[in-house]
Amino acid sequence: MSNQPKTLPARYYTDPGVFQRELENLFCRMWVCVGRTEQASRHSDFFLCEIAGESIIITRDGDVLRGFYNVCRHRGTRVCREQEGKFAGPIRCPYHGWSYGLDGKLVGVPHMDDSFQREKYPLHPVQIGEWDGFIFLNLDPTPNSQPLAVQLADLPKKFAPWGLRDLRRYKRITYDVKANWKLIVLNYNECLHCPLLHPALNRVTDYLSGNNDPPQPSYIGGSMELRDGAETMSVDGRRRREYLPGLNEAQRKQVFYYALYPNLFLSLHPDYVMAHTLWPEAVDKTRVLCEWYFHPSEMAKPDFNADDAVEFWDTTNREDWAISELAQQGIRSRAYVPGPYSPREMLPAAFDQWILQHERV
Amino acid sequence: MSNQPKTLPARYYTDPGVFQRELENLFCRMWVCVGRTEQASRHSDFFLCEIAGESIIITRDGDVLRGFYNVCRHRGTRVCREQEGKFAGPIRCPYHGWSYGLDGKLVGVPHMDDSFQREKYPLHPVQIGEWDGFIFLNLDPTPNSQPLAVQLADLPKKFAPWGLRDLRRYKRITYDVKANWKLIVLNYNECLHCPLLHPALNRVTDYLSGNNDPPQPSYIGGSMELRDGAETMSVDGRRRREYLPGLNEAQRKQVFYYALYPNLFLSLHPDYVMAHTLWPEAVDKTRVLCEWYFHPSEMAKPDFNADDAVEFWDTTNREDWAISELAQQGIRSRAYVPGPYSPREMLPAAFDQWILQHERV
Amino acid sequence: MSNQPKTLPARYYTDPGVFQRELENLFCRMWVCVGRTEQASRHSDFFLCEIAGESIIITRDGDVLRGFYNVCRHRGTRVCREQEGKFAGPIRCPYHGWSYGLDGKLVGVPHMDDSFQREKYPLHPVQIGEWDGFIFLNLDPTPNSQPLAVQLADLPKKFAPWGLRDLRRYKRITYDVKANWKLIVLNYNECLHCPLLHPALNRVTDYLSGNNDPPQPSYIGGSMELRDGAETMSVDGRRRREYLPGLNEAQRKQVFYYALYPNLFLSLHPDYVMAHTLWPEAVDKTRVLCEWYFHPSEMAKPDFNADDAVEFWDTTNREDWAISELAQQGIRSRAYVPGPYSPREMLPAAFDQWILQHERV
Repeated sequence: MSNQPKTLPARYYTDPGVFQRELENLFCRMWVCVGRTEQASRHSDFFLCEIAGESIIITRDGDVLRGFYNVCRHRGTRVCREQEGKFAGPIRCPYHGWSYGLDGKLVGVPHMDDSFQREKYPLHPVQIGEWDGFIFLNLDPTPNSQPLAVQLADLPKKFAPWGLRDLRRYKRITYDVKANWKLIVLNYNECLHCPLLHPALNRVTDYLSGNNDPPQPSYIGGSMELRDGAETMSVDGRRRREYLPGLNEAQRKQVFYYALYPNLFLSLHPDYVMAHTLWPEAVDKTRVLCEWYFHPSEMAKPDFNADDAVEFWDTTNREDWAISELAQQGIRSRAYVPGPYSPREMLPAAFDQWILQHERV
Repeated sequence: MSNQPKTLPARYYTDPGVFQRELENLFCRMWVCVGRTEQASRHSDFFLCEIAGESIIITRDGDVLRGFYNVCRHRGTRVCREQEGKFAGPIRCPYHGWSYGLDGKLVGVPHMDDSFQREKYPLHPVQIGEWDGFIFLNLDPTPNSQPLAVQLADLPKKFAPWGLRDLRRYKRITYDVKANWKLIVLNYNECLHCPLLHPALNRVTDYLSGNNDPPQPSYIGGSMELRDGAETMSVDGRRRREYLPGLNEAQRKQVFYYALYPNLFLSLHPDYVMAHTLWPEAVDKTRVLCEWYFHPSEMAKPDFNADDAVEFWDTTNREDWAISELAQQGIRSRAYVPGPYSPREMLPAAFDQWILQHERV
Repeated sequence: MSNQPKTLPARYYTDPGVFQRELENLFCRMWVCVGRTEQASRHSDFFLCEIAGESIIITRDGDVLRGFYNVCRHRGTRVCREQEGKFAGPIRCPYHGWSYGLDGKLVGVPHMDDSFQREKYPLHPVQIGEWDGFIFLNLDPTPNSQPLAVQLADLPKKFAPWGLRDLRRYKRITYDVKANWKLIVLNYNECLHCPLLHPALNRVTDYLSGNNDPPQPSYIGGSMELRDGAETMSVDGRRRREYLPGLNEAQRKQVFYYALYPNLFLSLHPDYVMAHTLWPEAVDKTRVLCEWYFHPSEMAKPDFNADDAVEFWDTTNREDWAISELAQQGIRSRAYVPGPYSPREMLPAAFDQWILQHERV
């Protein structure tokens, strides 16, 4: 009993200083998932994302995906105002018209002396990477930062059967949660709370079923079994779409839940995939984007409708956010002291350990 | 003139550090009034109160009134979400189902090892006390903290004629005031401002009448005389209810105003009682709850209606909050310097002295 | 190229400490424009202004214009609640009735001892001055602070032809801009951004025309030429009013833009004058008041309507505030570094130098 893991001290959920360090050490030095390839699939498509207070432009320059800080090199103005779209030509700052190619190079600059060296003023680049349709950024400016492949570890191989690259987004819902981002990670990684909190979910999967992988340096996760009679996660357990083409018999009867540190949750179902990305905004405030992806051959069917999956998870999401907010409120109390994790909460305990290891104060 | 008391320096009303110390030294180490016995009169009735950012559960366990921090010993979640109600059984945390008896003992804990020692994880208790129908909490965890009876001093005897225990709540109004809590105490404890600020009130009592008690270590207060023709505090001075049964002839012609430090104002009228409780939320923000209590034999009458008393004081309250907010704004100025109290402001001056004595920086 | 001026480091636009020092060193030690003489032209007229968090009463006492902190000497209450009006008698605090003459002297004080020395408790005065219809305050309490005339330098002579004293206000619009006040100064003092940002403005003046004065210790400014066919700044360039009476042929074809540090912009047109005053509220938040003044002989005409000028500049203002907000957002980024000013941005560069010289940390 003496080695039983306990929850973290309150300051990890309430101290703005701890939060700033986490932004710096985790969200600004690791690969964070910012979107899907389909959001910038053709030349000069772009979209913006905001991470740790930074606005980043993601755009496609021919075959190459690029990321830039949304900051003009002239007087610092945000050069791009629209959340997404297609650049009609160079990226032009709306203030004084400094213009940048899609490779970030400064190409137009009104009224400067001939001596002005425009090659010194490109848009500041950001490291960018892709995996199976997901786009990742890394704000770490150091040359030897960890490659995306290292952070992904064996997940590409593990998830190959679901063919994530081929799927397309059906729906996105944005949630503003008044809780520290880590409470949302803890909540995602155990189902001990499912019987009480998620009656609908508990009807289609057994919270005592499934297996967890041993915790990895960059992710945690595992599987759950669908109950007899249930074929996917939906209100009635009924599956209204073909199985994803690459799945074997066993995968067709399971749901897989993985949290890739620091901000991506992947929930793999027999007939669809759901992804959450976390966007910490304050020590007690997190924006969560939840997206649902389906196979294009299903989406092309005239009567395609996947609201059953969306509504099922939207309900479950809201139950999770509400309880995470109650946790945030309680942990703030002077009466809070770290409490004991049960044997069924080994993934949350592993995440806490990962947090402690990455403090780098 | 050299010893004439002056108002406090601005920092007492504007410095968040001073505010935090007051929360700790006064609101978290003294008995604060949090409600009425009738709010938890039967077994398993409960209500929540929030004090200094802490959510506290007050519940009745048989004959015993109890107070607990609203914090689950498992992962810190607030175990109780409703503001008031009746527990159907044990107090069960909505997250993972840890359950507590009404005595706070942990009685149910799913999926823990057999070695788990549940007796180590009761809800954290809070000291609780009652006086004549008022419930008080004390967050002070030290064993030798002051008993409630010491803080109440001679008030129970002094107020016995009004039979506070027998009265019942008719109405509650909640006010959010953009002023430091002490400005509201200062405002309550002098009527020099009445002629100018409260024309309706000034018609029924003479601000120069009455007597103040000598300031006490835990309270200040005094009386005012009703003007000829007025029988209680209402818009027209008319009394629409029987006198409270225990009052003598003199008490029937007076109104008594007492401030019990730190957060209760008691206003005793010939036919009803009004109580304010103060809930400091920030150095410049206070929530005020105002409640009106009447005798049950009056309230049982079919045509009982006491809106005359409520409206009279609601108007007066709003006048007081508005001027307290103007005081807050002015004191924030660099031009503010402590100003002279007049001889008719001895109770405010006494309260300031009490504040200075309790700084314990 | 090595001496090419660059924009200021980010902290000048994002650090609350820098902002507080600027409030103290610039807005509380220099003359700031707070309104027009016509707002307090007759005995006992008054209006309030708010500067660096201070509420100031400006009132006329016979021929004398006076300024006072809006703080009662009794308990610090704001004595004046209305934004403008006419005092019916003495200035009376609404709390306990302390009353002050229009010269600030305490004249009425209820219930004080005979020994009370009321001459010790006047309203705290503020230095006040006037120039050609504009009212200026200076919160600097030191006796040898700079006279208004020194700060105005040669502007009174330079602007004499426009007869500012005779003009009257037609319209005021208040804008809340989410940008540091200095970004608004920078924006006002160059027209390099005009072709891209202000298409309507660019049709009536040529952004390459005109001349800047050499930067002065207390102001910067210059002129621009109206394009052929344009007679004033309005949507169609058409002038609907007589020229201001004192202007010569050259002045009738130009617009003059001057920024008097720290908070007044004067835009002099052939037939009207526009003034902006800046009211910094936070490091990233500024209130801007924009007013339009016309000649009384024009305003007296039955069909007088100057909405063409107001709408023209209201559109231009909003374009400027939006781009200033984008600058604020971009400068906040970790990627921001000071960027190079072009030769056409010499006035912004001069203002930055002025800021650096007045840091007095």
